[in-house]
Amino acid sequence: MSSKKDVSVRRNFLKKTLIAGSVVGGAVTSKIALAQNSESNFLVVDPWTKTQGSGFINPPYGLPSKYEKNVVRVLPNPVPTFPTGSRTPLQSLHGIITPNGLVFERHHAGIPDINPDQHRLVIHGMVDRPMIFTMEDIVRFPSESRIYFLECSGNSAAELKKATGKTAQEIHGLLSCCEWTGVRLSTILQECGVQSSAKWALAEGADGAAMTRSIPMSKMMDDALLVYAQNGEMLRAEQGYPLRLFLPGFEGNMSIKWLRRIKLGDAPWQTREETSAYTDLLPDGKAEQFTFAMDVKSVITQPSGMMKLKLKGFYEISGVAWSGNGKIRSVEVSTDGGKFWSQAILQEPVMDKSLVRFRFPWVWDGAPAVLMSRAVDASGDVQPTMDALLKAKGANIFYHNNAIQPWRVAANGEITNDR
Amino acid sequence: MSSKKDVSVRRNFLKKTLIAGSVVGGAVTSKIALAQNSESNFLVVDPWTKTQGSGFINPPYGLPSKYEKNVVRVLPNPVPTFPTGSRTPLQSLHGIITPNGLVFERHHAGIPDINPDQHRLVIHGMVDRPMIFTMEDIVRFPSESRIYFLECSGNSAAELKKATGKTAQEIHGLLSCCEWTGVRLSTILQECGVQSSAKWALAEGADGAAMTRSIPMSKMMDDALLVYAQNGEMLRAEQGYPLRLFLPGFEGNMSIKWLRRIKLGDAPWQTREETSAYTDLLPDGKAEQFTFAMDVKSVITQPSGMMKLKLKGFYEISGVAWSGNGKIRSVEVSTDGGKFWSQAILQEPVMDKSLVRFRFPWVWDGAPAVLMSRAVDASGDVQPTMDALLKAKGANIFYHNNAIQPWRVAANGEITNDR
Repeated sequence: MSSKKDVSVRRNFLKKTLIAGSVVGGAVTSKIALAQNSESNFLVVDPWTKTQGSGFINPPYGLPSKYEKNVVRVLPNPVPTFPTGSRTPLQSLHGIITPNGLVFERHHAGIPDINPDQHRLVIHGMVDRPMIFTMEDIVRFPSESRIYFLECSGNSAAELKKATGKTAQEIHGLLSCCEWTGVRLSTILQECGVQSSAKWALAEGADGAAMTRSIPMSKMMDDALLVYAQNGEMLRAEQGYPLRLFLPGFEGNMSIKWLRRIKLGDAPWQTREETSAYTDLLPDGKAEQFTFAMDVKSVITQPSGMMKLKLKGFYEISGVAWSGNGKIRSVEVSTDGGKFWSQAILQEPVMDKSLVRFRFPWVWDGAPAVLMSRAVDASGDVQPTMDALLKAKGANIFYHNNAIQPWRVAANGEITNDR
Repeated sequence: MSSKKDVSVRRNFLKKTLIAGSVVGGAVTSKIALAQNSESNFLVVDPWTKTQGSGFINPPYGLPSKYEKNVVRVLPNPVPTFPTGSRTPLQSLHGIITPNGLVFERHHAGIPDINPDQHRLVIHGMVDRPMIFTMEDIVRFPSESRIYFLECSGNSAAELKKATGKTAQEIHGLLSCCEWTGVRLSTILQECGVQSSAKWALAEGADGAAMTRSIPMSKMMDDALLVYAQNGEMLRAEQGYPLRLFLPGFEGNMSIKWLRRIKLGDAPWQTREETSAYTDLLPDGKAEQFTFAMDVKSVITQPSGMMKLKLKGFYEISGVAWSGNGKIRSVEVSTDGGKFWSQAILQEPVMDKSLVRFRFPWVWDGAPAVLMSRAVDASGDVQPTMDALLKAKGANIFYHNNAIQPWRVAANGEITNDR
């Protein structure tokens, strides 16, 4: 229990810091207990301090605390007959890095079991010297490490028709961010001698779907990577072990996992996954194809759907923002459903095509509220409302939902998806 | 097998890029096979492409590929009767992030099993308002996320007397780097009202050792964090779940894990762990105490001890550099045991008190070589040779070995610790 004086001190502090526009200071008006000014009260020794720790050394490869057993990837709700993806628990994460065990999955024929010693990458087509590379060859090339987000183009798709998901994970969890390490693809393509006629590349996976996509050569010669490591260690099986393509900022499925082949040509291949899927039906009946970059987007993760604010007072609103078109320039936050917007603080470093963590100080007065975030990227693109998105793209779109996510806070503190 | 023409082309390419001082290009003269210019040769379908993947969706919390089962934390070699630490496999890692499962461990009484709902942080001593915080209180404060290295002050210690470790992991593996999220300690201390007489803080862990260290208030009010998350997810048990102190750049043991108490006072407490340990015996018989910051250091991780270069030709030398005193300014690499030094490329972003990945292109001609890296930090401090370190500090030191690590490459390609 806080003393009256203490609450008053903290209120003044909060008022001062908020008036000054600072979020460095802050105050929590909840259950902070003022200790008696005697050591005996709080020098109670907990049971875990009285014994030797149970696990003297953790397993060779460690796992999360047992108390965090609910922080896991989840399947869509309801679970489909043949699930093809799992989602990252955005509402439980902090900062920008997604730990490898929680990176979202999207497979087109499950996870192949590839022996890295037998895996090969073939580069052929419009090159002077077609080549086959082993993994041993590839890791000898000059490498680079970059922190990039990865988002499925179908992320948040179910929300376009009506509100379906309840949590940030259910709605937006086909999104992760890792430090990826590999070889700049242009380095290896130069070894093969790119012919001037080559305008497109076909990338093919070694999974049962032989997942294939056509990619403009401009991207392949720019920042495309042949990735073999994520967050320091080798790729996880479900992320393409031992080798994947990585196209920073592009829709996730194009960063072909279990990459076995790149063919250069002068036109796109019109593969199954760029004709029957990953296109959008426009109002005029035509299909919008080759929508590569993931547009500017953000979502508030704390607090968010299915959480409950137990008490009035200070909360830090926090979330992530990203753009496939470059850096995030700014994020604004509204707590009144979009009438009034304020600048959030962006956590440094703000990197190209990476998640950016934003934070905004908020004092909840106990009245109903609607929390929203709106990101702007370096190109000046502004994250749209759902109405604006549907007006621009028509009601039939499925991919590339980058609309603003509103979270409704009820007077009892319960938070729901306000779509 | 490479064709003669192909090898020649690549040699010219290498020569050009090296003369131009570029490491963006590169060439591998090993086993790259020139495919016949017919698709039939490399469109062989692998077994894993012919079937549905075995694990359709990975477990809710994923693990590394079974082919990476040797990339684990290890105990010291030989294993002590009561092991108190495990080491990060630096030679198998890429980039700067250490995945949580591989972050090094150092415990003084094992890993306590703390229920986060029962955990409390007490702040008392020279404060106006002593307080007790629950975890629920703490996560409501304004937070920040930073990528910082963490190094045990005893890292590399065994090397001071003679060469003992064989791999980068065995020698230098008490080193990791994560994105840490928590509350700036100064925010919470300000809530408690720091009295002007407070010059030192005592931080105490809730483990069986009740690990305690004295920390200058200047650090506590600067960049010290109350950390509850690492690499996105909540702290691992072995890293202090649910709450640890984090003192960027300071020796690891001071970032008290399982933090239960902070007391402010006007002088250090002279605890067991700052008198009987974590001090160094100087030549004049006095103990050097309170050596907080980890000095500028670097180590080549690829290639490194116990690896073997199978073929002559191009290799990328790569490693990590860090300094507890700030940013890394530059890293130089020598391949001739320190006679000639060249600038390595630093991977952006170069962050304060974070690991930095450096890279250097090298063509191995098959002759014996000694690979070394030498880091310089923003304060101008230069990583010393072992001789210089011992000359400056005396032969009895145990902690803070930041000497240059030489790796000897034999004519047969085998790499050994050249200490």
